[in-house]
Amino acid sequence: MPLIFWLVPIGAVLALSFAYIFFKQMMKHDEGTDTMKKIAAHVRKGASAYLRQQYKVVIIVFVIITIIFSILAYGLGIQNPWVPFAFITGGAFSGLAGFFGMKAATFASARVANACRTSLNAGLRLAFRSGAVMGLVVVGLVLLDISIWFLVLDHFIPEMAGGYKLMTISAVMLTFGMGASTQALFARVGGGIYTKAADVGADLVGKVEANIPEDDPRNPATIADNVGDNVGDVAGMGADLFESFAASILASALLGAAAYMKDSALQFNAVIAPMVIAAIGTMLSILGVFMVRTKEGATQKQLLKSLGLGVNISAVLIVIASYLVLHFLGLPVGLWGSIVIGLAAGIGIGQSTEYFTASAYKPTQKIAASSSTGPATVIISGVGTGLISAAVPLGIIVVAITLAFGFASNFVFNASNLNIGLYGIGIAAVGMLSTLGITLATDAYGPIADNAGGNAEMSKLGPEVRKRTDALDALGNTTAATGKGFAIGSAALTALALLASYFEEIRMMFVKFLDKPLELINGTPAIDAQFIDFVHHYDIHLMNPIVIVGIFLGVMAVFLFSGMTMNAVGRAAQKMVDEVRRQFKTIPGIMEGTAEPDYAKCVEISTKGAQKEMLAPSLIALLIPVVVGLVFGVAGIAGLLIGTISSGFALAIFMANAGGAWDNAKKYVEEGHYGGKGSDNHKATVIGDTVGDPFKDTSGPSLNILIKLMVMASVVTVGVAVSYHLL
Amino acid sequence: MPLIFWLVPIGAVLALSFAYIFFKQMMKHDEGTDTMKKIAAHVRKGASAYLRQQYKVVIIVFVIITIIFSILAYGLGIQNPWVPFAFITGGAFSGLAGFFGMKAATFASARVANACRTSLNAGLRLAFRSGAVMGLVVVGLVLLDISIWFLVLDHFIPEMAGGYKLMTISAVMLTFGMGASTQALFARVGGGIYTKAADVGADLVGKVEANIPEDDPRNPATIADNVGDNVGDVAGMGADLFESFAASILASALLGAAAYMKDSALQFNAVIAPMVIAAIGTMLSILGVFMVRTKEGATQKQLLKSLGLGVNISAVLIVIASYLVLHFLGLPVGLWGSIVIGLAAGIGIGQSTEYFTASAYKPTQKIAASSSTGPATVIISGVGTGLISAAVPLGIIVVAITLAFGFASNFVFNASNLNIGLYGIGIAAVGMLSTLGITLATDAYGPIADNAGGNAEMSKLGPEVRKRTDALDALGNTTAATGKGFAIGSAALTALALLASYFEEIRMMFVKFLDKPLELINGTPAIDAQFIDFVHHYDIHLMNPIVIVGIFLGVMAVFLFSGMTMNAVGRAAQKMVDEVRRQFKTIPGIMEGTAEPDYAKCVEISTKGAQKEMLAPSLIALLIPVVVGLVFGVAGIAGLLIGTISSGFALAIFMANAGGAWDNAKKYVEEGHYGGKGSDNHKATVIGDTVGDPFKDTSGPSLNILIKLMVMASVVTVGVAVSYHLL
Repeated sequence: MPLIFWLVPIGAVLALSFAYIFFKQMMKHDEGTDTMKKIAAHVRKGASAYLRQQYKVVIIVFVIITIIFSILAYGLGIQNPWVPFAFITGGAFSGLAGFFGMKAATFASARVANACRTSLNAGLRLAFRSGAVMGLVVVGLVLLDISIWFLVLDHFIPEMAGGYKLMTISAVMLTFGMGASTQALFARVGGGIYTKAADVGADLVGKVEANIPEDDPRNPATIADNVGDNVGDVAGMGADLFESFAASILASALLGAAAYMKDSALQFNAVIAPMVIAAIGTMLSILGVFMVRTKEGATQKQLLKSLGLGVNISAVLIVIASYLVLHFLGLPVGLWGSIVIGLAAGIGIGQSTEYFTASAYKPTQKIAASSSTGPATVIISGVGTGLISAAVPLGIIVVAITLAFGFASNFVFNASNLNIGLYGIGIAAVGMLSTLGITLATDAYGPIADNAGGNAEMSKLGPEVRKRTDALDALGNTTAATGKGFAIGSAALTALALLASYFEEIRMMFVKFLDKPLELINGTPAIDAQFIDFVHHYDIHLMNPIVIVGIFLGVMAVFLFSGMTMNAVGRAAQKMVDEVRRQFKTIPGIMEGTAEPDYAKCVEISTKGAQKEMLAPSLIALLIPVVVGLVFGVAGIAGLLIGTISSGFALAIFMANAGGAWDNAKKYVEEGHYGGKGSDNHKATVIGDTVGDPFKDTSGPSLNILIKLMVMASVVTVGVAVSYHLL
Repeated sequence: MPLIFWLVPIGAVLALSFAYIFFKQMMKHDEGTDTMKKIAAHVRKGASAYLRQQYKVVIIVFVIITIIFSILAYGLGIQNPWVPFAFITGGAFSGLAGFFGMKAATFASARVANACRTSLNAGLRLAFRSGAVMGLVVVGLVLLDISIWFLVLDHFIPEMAGGYKLMTISAVMLTFGMGASTQALFARVGGGIYTKAADVGADLVGKVEANIPEDDPRNPATIADNVGDNVGDVAGMGADLFESFAASILASALLGAAAYMKDSALQFNAVIAPMVIAAIGTMLSILGVFMVRTKEGATQKQLLKSLGLGVNISAVLIVIASYLVLHFLGLPVGLWGSIVIGLAAGIGIGQSTEYFTASAYKPTQKIAASSSTGPATVIISGVGTGLISAAVPLGIIVVAITLAFGFASNFVFNASNLNIGLYGIGIAAVGMLSTLGITLATDAYGPIADNAGGNAEMSKLGPEVRKRTDALDALGNTTAATGKGFAIGSAALTALALLASYFEEIRMMFVKFLDKPLELINGTPAIDAQFIDFVHHYDIHLMNPIVIVGIFLGVMAVFLFSGMTMNAVGRAAQKMVDEVRRQFKTIPGIMEGTAEPDYAKCVEISTKGAQKEMLAPSLIALLIPVVVGLVFGVAGIAGLLIGTISSGFALAIFMANAGGAWDNAKKYVEEGHYGGKGSDNHKATVIGDTVGDPFKDTSGPSLNILIKLMVMASVVTVGVAVSYHLL
């Protein structure tokens, strides 16, 4: 193994070590008063209970899928025998990352609130470093798993002529992504339903009916609401990006292996390049984490700047480092353009999210203004703005695909450049995600700050403390919005890289099937001829009605899945409303604050509701690609995947941005515009905010998983669709 | 010309004659009291003023496009010289159909209200026959234009070897559809914005602020609201289906010409088959119109049954007739399966729309139930239900495409059967639309009944009259919902047929370009080889990043366009709100009913608002395909179109069904459920209804046009994308 590869395990160990150090440092801080400790313990207990429950379901699903994979591998012989194991480790590592990240977050919240009693800077640093635990655990575990598997498979899989060894290795490693994807599905869908059932339920009875403020300890659903932030925004977001990070690296490795079949030295370098870049990006992220600090009395702008500084330093350094890596590995310098494009696209999508959802800009202000004519116009203008806002990231992705392919292929868009061009798209996704260690830290920071605020509110800390936690929380809302945009953008680019690797896998199978190994055919025209054979054999062109049917089915899956998650929140929230109403009625002294509400019951209801409601949409996501493959074959799958990715991406952005804009339009009114708090305008925007909750935190983010999982499931079961199909 | 072709002009003349007869019969009825006459005159004047204004804009756009087409044809020589003329007649005939249909509707409303003073049966028959004027004018003018052009082009275009003459004729005739499409764009978008700006504006001030009922003559926006029903639901819907009817026939003719290049006798028959089937369907529709009657005191179910009887008789007879036509023309009997599938799919989509939007079924009742927790949950559950509801028509279209192609190709899905299979898809669209004469009559009946009710309300007619108009109106709401589903379904199937003809046109150009005329190559493998060349030359396969980019751009166009139309309604409604508030403030005696509000001013505001707001989205719809063609070429266009059709169809269904369900959830509460009128639950559902207005009547239906127009524009400018493109 060449020396440069060892950067990957080193990056893994460094990330995990710093995560451990930050965790230990955080644990040394005091949790504050007894009330603060008690509330934090409630939230911690609820979150752990939820995670335990969810992992039980996930384990059952994993057992079933592993059995199916074993049958495919050992019974039917249409899958590599390593697949079941790679699948299990992917799921297990993703689950571990979620577990550690959430532990850190739930231990941190009271400590951050307590640190805010000292100073804003102390609070910010503690919250951010606790978020960094999550960020670093995620990237560290991904790199660790990749390192181990690459070394193991390189050792056990025998040499094959014509570059087939590395193709096989990277194809097996992709199934590691399938494990991560499956675990992420339940984390995102279950967590998303949990958090919004609790939030919507708490708001509908607490704010609207009982007229008590948010995070009021008298509200029985308030602990469940805080638990929800952790299981949805920390564990769910972590699992989501764990998968994007893993899948982008692994898909690029496979695309690299396919692009350089004829040159074994370059092929090896092309396979390890994405891993090395991700590892260096991780080290630079650790550096960036240390850059984040602020001075007392900082404005929100200054706070945002200090977070941005860390991210930007990491980003600039990775641009330089990736050039050196490509140069060292002897890969075309055009690929560097693809990496930069990927990074820029990620930043661009984040920026557009901010523009469409922050109250500093026109779109959100217009939504706030429309509250003068009541809630209906607030909803209409939020939907209108959300739909328009989807066009910008779609445009960015279009430019990114074109340029990433273009740079890699010297802007010659034809079949002979297809392999290297698709590798460029994969590498762009790696570029976008290279600084995930620190980006994810800023994401996880949000719910930690939010929970710290909740803890301060419930523990009745002084106004100067709450002002500080409010400042941290407001900042968290901004990073959450850009983080969501980034998560969706990276999901789309990752899914496209996965789609490309799906095609490459099929092409390899097809070439093998025809008994025409690639190395026997030299030069461009030969590859072209093979390629035409392939396209024709599987008819994956747009004149084939099966492809069109597949595209329609992909769009159908997206709409069905979002509708189901949306309705799931409605039903689960309804149960929460009933329970809160029951407690207000039956527990005497609850409104006077003399009796404690039954928090645990609400936590239990959210947990059960989420577990029950997540099953149907999750099964659909897992089954559709398999069923479509069995009925319509590869052509149907090809259409299905691009239909899902394109429409799922657009719908996810629409939902996330509309939800974010409604949230901030409400805050804009609360700041004193259009009548301020308590006015009719405010009530209208509160309705918008509540509608936006499942948009931005359940259905929208769940689509990230759907678009990646459908491709993953197709990649892993490719042998099935090739061997058996009806039409 | 063979005898059977003459059925087409005969069908045209019969349809137009009966339209004229029904119109004359309707005009003989009395308009009722002076107040009734005055109100009807107000509405008529407003509607005519709007149409005049809109046609001015349309004429300017037509002049510009005609100049561009002339340059392409006479300057650059990359377009057939007949194209500019075919384009103009398409637009002119569509405009005429809208004009006559709206005239009939606006003359009918007071007469229907007056007929209801006699009996329910008199009211129903008059309203329905007035709607039939619209239905028959639309199908009559389409058939007339097709007859004339086919005879003219057959005479002037010289014989060419290898079936190229009929290919050329049908390609030129398709541009007739482009004219219809462009005029429909402005009719749907402008009419949609008009009607909902007036409706939302009237409701927000009238119902919510001033607390006066709908259609109250004291509301200054009430006339504009009634005008809106005519310009949106009559003229807009008519132009929409005019285009679907024309385009499905013409696309099928082209697909038929392409499928039988090698057999000139069969080729001719395949080209005229869709025209003949449409003509016979028209005659059977006239027969169906005469079947519609009811007895006094009929329940809504009986009313619905009597309308359904007419439609069903026509449908059953066309199934039999089309078998005979295919048999007589010597075409494969498998195509009959495609026709039946098309008809069945239309009915299925209509039924699913009814299930998801009628208050008799669970989905709408659940939305009504969610009003117990306020407007936010009403919106959430409406969005959830709407998203899920899109899955059903998508599934139906998937089955319809598969079976229509399958029946035509004996279920052999490969490249050699591509042409006949695609012809099957075209023929299925013709089948779905064959009974449009009567289906459109039931659609146009809705706004006529609605306006009759408005007239009765404003003219303060007795309660027994209003009960009758209410019964007619309630029926109209159901037919409007299924009509919307049918319009979207037929738009999707028509767009797919157009997409297939786009590919056939390109293939022809490509074959010509290679100087390998088809007739020189006999047998299946030869076509296959050519076909592979074609696919490869333009790279319209899913591994090409340009195709993927195109698909993303297609989805982007859909989201941008819907967001813009949605926001347009918001802005235009805001102006209406301001005006109504101003009148309430400045006109003394308006609330006491002693002074008349300034209706004309509100009509003017809606007219101006609609004209101004329709431009930006319309330009986007026209420009995107051209720009994408110039940058990305045919591969980009291919992706663009399928991206637009698939996601546009899904979004259109989502919006139409969510809007319809909210509307009926409100009515369900008004019927006395969950507290009935005036309760908090009712207020929550009123908010849902208002949100749903632009969903179901502006953005949703406008997407029908977008998906057809984008394909049309690409078909017509195919020479440009082939000759000039950047990548």
